[in-house]
Amino acid sequence: MPYDYVPDLLIKSNSKIVLLILDGLGGLPLVPGGPTTLEAAQTPNLDKLAAEGTLGRTIPVRHGVTPGSGPAHLALFGYDPLHYPVGRGVMEALGVGLEVGPGAVAARGNFCTLDADGNISDRRAGRISSEEAAPIVEELKKIEIKGVKIEVRHVKEYRFAVVMHGEGLQGEIDDTDPQATGVKPLPAVARDGGSAKTAELFNQWVAEAQKVLASQPKANGMTLRGFGGDPQLPSYQDAYGLKAACVAVYPMYRGVSKLVGMQTILFDGETPADEFAAAAKVWDEYDFLFIHIKKTDSMGEDGDFDGKVKVIESVDQALPALLALKPDVLMVTGDHSTPVKMRSHSWHPVPLLFWAPERGLPDEQTRFGERACMHGGLGTIPATELMALALAHAGRLEKFGA
Amino acid sequence: MPYDYVPDLLIKSNSKIVLLILDGLGGLPLVPGGPTTLEAAQTPNLDKLAAEGTLGRTIPVRHGVTPGSGPAHLALFGYDPLHYPVGRGVMEALGVGLEVGPGAVAARGNFCTLDADGNISDRRAGRISSEEAAPIVEELKKIEIKGVKIEVRHVKEYRFAVVMHGEGLQGEIDDTDPQATGVKPLPAVARDGGSAKTAELFNQWVAEAQKVLASQPKANGMTLRGFGGDPQLPSYQDAYGLKAACVAVYPMYRGVSKLVGMQTILFDGETPADEFAAAAKVWDEYDFLFIHIKKTDSMGEDGDFDGKVKVIESVDQALPALLALKPDVLMVTGDHSTPVKMRSHSWHPVPLLFWAPERGLPDEQTRFGERACMHGGLGTIPATELMALALAHAGRLEKFGA
Repeated sequence: MPYDYVPDLLIKSNSKIVLLILDGLGGLPLVPGGPTTLEAAQTPNLDKLAAEGTLGRTIPVRHGVTPGSGPAHLALFGYDPLHYPVGRGVMEALGVGLEVGPGAVAARGNFCTLDADGNISDRRAGRISSEEAAPIVEELKKIEIKGVKIEVRHVKEYRFAVVMHGEGLQGEIDDTDPQATGVKPLPAVARDGGSAKTAELFNQWVAEAQKVLASQPKANGMTLRGFGGDPQLPSYQDAYGLKAACVAVYPMYRGVSKLVGMQTILFDGETPADEFAAAAKVWDEYDFLFIHIKKTDSMGEDGDFDGKVKVIESVDQALPALLALKPDVLMVTGDHSTPVKMRSHSWHPVPLLFWAPERGLPDEQTRFGERACMHGGLGTIPATELMALALAHAGRLEKFGA
Repeated sequence: MPYDYVPDLLIKSNSKIVLLILDGLGGLPLVPGGPTTLEAAQTPNLDKLAAEGTLGRTIPVRHGVTPGSGPAHLALFGYDPLHYPVGRGVMEALGVGLEVGPGAVAARGNFCTLDADGNISDRRAGRISSEEAAPIVEELKKIEIKGVKIEVRHVKEYRFAVVMHGEGLQGEIDDTDPQATGVKPLPAVARDGGSAKTAELFNQWVAEAQKVLASQPKANGMTLRGFGGDPQLPSYQDAYGLKAACVAVYPMYRGVSKLVGMQTILFDGETPADEFAAAAKVWDEYDFLFIHIKKTDSMGEDGDFDGKVKVIESVDQALPALLALKPDVLMVTGDHSTPVKMRSHSWHPVPLLFWAPERGLPDEQTRFGERACMHGGLGTIPATELMALALAHAGRLEKFGA
């Protein structure tokens, strides 16, 4: 359990909790003395919530650790990624919309270039373009291995994901990537007896795949990494007594939320307004809604300051529709920072706006932004603490001890 | 040990440490933009200490966890309640002034109503009044069981506490409360061999008690919960090298302090001034004084904003007598928050005033209050960290390592 002591303290409630994630929300000033994107954005609705609520900052994994999207979201959901490791193969598969349920084993695949002796000459197949690689993945999809179902999906450039579904599969298997050139890809080798059969099945599949790849000029080989199965995380229902759902445009976030037992809400459109409308439709059915906005992160990675500002403003403009639902607890934060200046995820603490009008202790902050959050009343806390605070402020935890 | 590393670092000192607890000190504004009780109170003496000292906030147990008084005090004393669990029966017994020393086993009792078949029809005996229940408890006190001494004391309404003293008693015993109506109370069943005899003795006592209760219209049955013995916590002397005493009006707090080896100071009166006078009388005999003010919490639970303000002001007015004793370290905080708005304990961080004129690092705060404490120099720390800070500021810890 994310918090061992919480299940014993849970009490019934009709209260509603919303976790609104602006992916990669946190940022840095572009120039000394300048604003961050969040500080530059015109956000009257968020600022009103900031004035009524409490600001703070979350540390996604640990100080100094830049998280991938998977671990960052697990942390927000209350599951410390260092205690609940989820295989990179599973995350990659979820990211392209593949499911990794009980009995499935996922891996990340890299195309590579092999020389005449079968040794790796380029570990990334000359950074083959997505346009070149996608049709090759289509060929791999045709391979069949007896007794199991195999799904392959292209990710980006030289990367793909593969998931094997079947009986008795287990994913304690070493990478086939030797992390070096001039040597052959390794066979899949199980680290325990229970995974031996699965390793052998992956080796069969790789052997068939090599026949397909043989004629390719760049991508004539492959390596597999990050094998892993369903991490069997405790569900939101068991951990928090919450019936939870996910409103997200991108498969990755739906996938991570499924790992903790959230239902996926399907809807048309992809704007914040579309997502809030989807939340409104299912409002009565759930205790907890995780709403995910992707484009803050995309703009950060693109180095587009104005673009990220505009995405934040579009969320702010759509916000009244969400507030009209009257959540008891609304948390607005990011999964990590994605500073435009760095064009990448970063480890910086993430701005947090915590709004719980009935039971919150307001601070003096009146504006949602990085610097204001440094002085917020919640302080700088591990992202994993957020769910306990949400449950408390939603009136869902009884007193501990006499 | 609360801090494994502290006993090796302890050095002799004549310094004096005072932990002044205003129970349930923390609060919330009653209206948006309004003050909390602590912010509304006129507290010139505390404010002077705030200006000279350092503010901060304590987290009693964990973020989001609302503690009972027992766990909250254990945390302040340095004993993480999640690592040093104390049975609810023990806490209930301490709360009404019963002792639970080595060899004793305590339980909480509930009167219930049984139907003609002996099944529970009301788990709380129709919420029988204290006036009705107290005389029944007097009858239970007369029951004798061979080989053990039994103490029973009324708590409130349908609740009472029972403690068994004797040789070889152990408290690993399941509740007799089936947590349901329409079924019979369960027998006391031991979870291990060492507790089997104790469970049997409790069953004998319950059988005798049933005879006493048979004629009662509402309270004609009982259930027992939260069995447990002396938690055998390390003493303040062993953990901190401190000769410690407790100045408190209410039995509960004397009881919890006894669990960690504090002496109870008996005194006349019940005002803050009376408590500080009691502290003055024994000042030379102890290294550490825990002084407990109850009524801040009571006023919070009563929803009496002005009442809580007045209690805080009465502490402030009496404070010069305590300061005249010249403590080396004075900590003023609560065990938890009890917001008037919620009329109950809560999980909110607790305001902390840490004053150590010789060795403290002052911050810029000049007023003791929730919002000022958000910006205090000690930050927001687990309550369990307080004792290590107190020892250090009192010059009682030597350097760790070369």
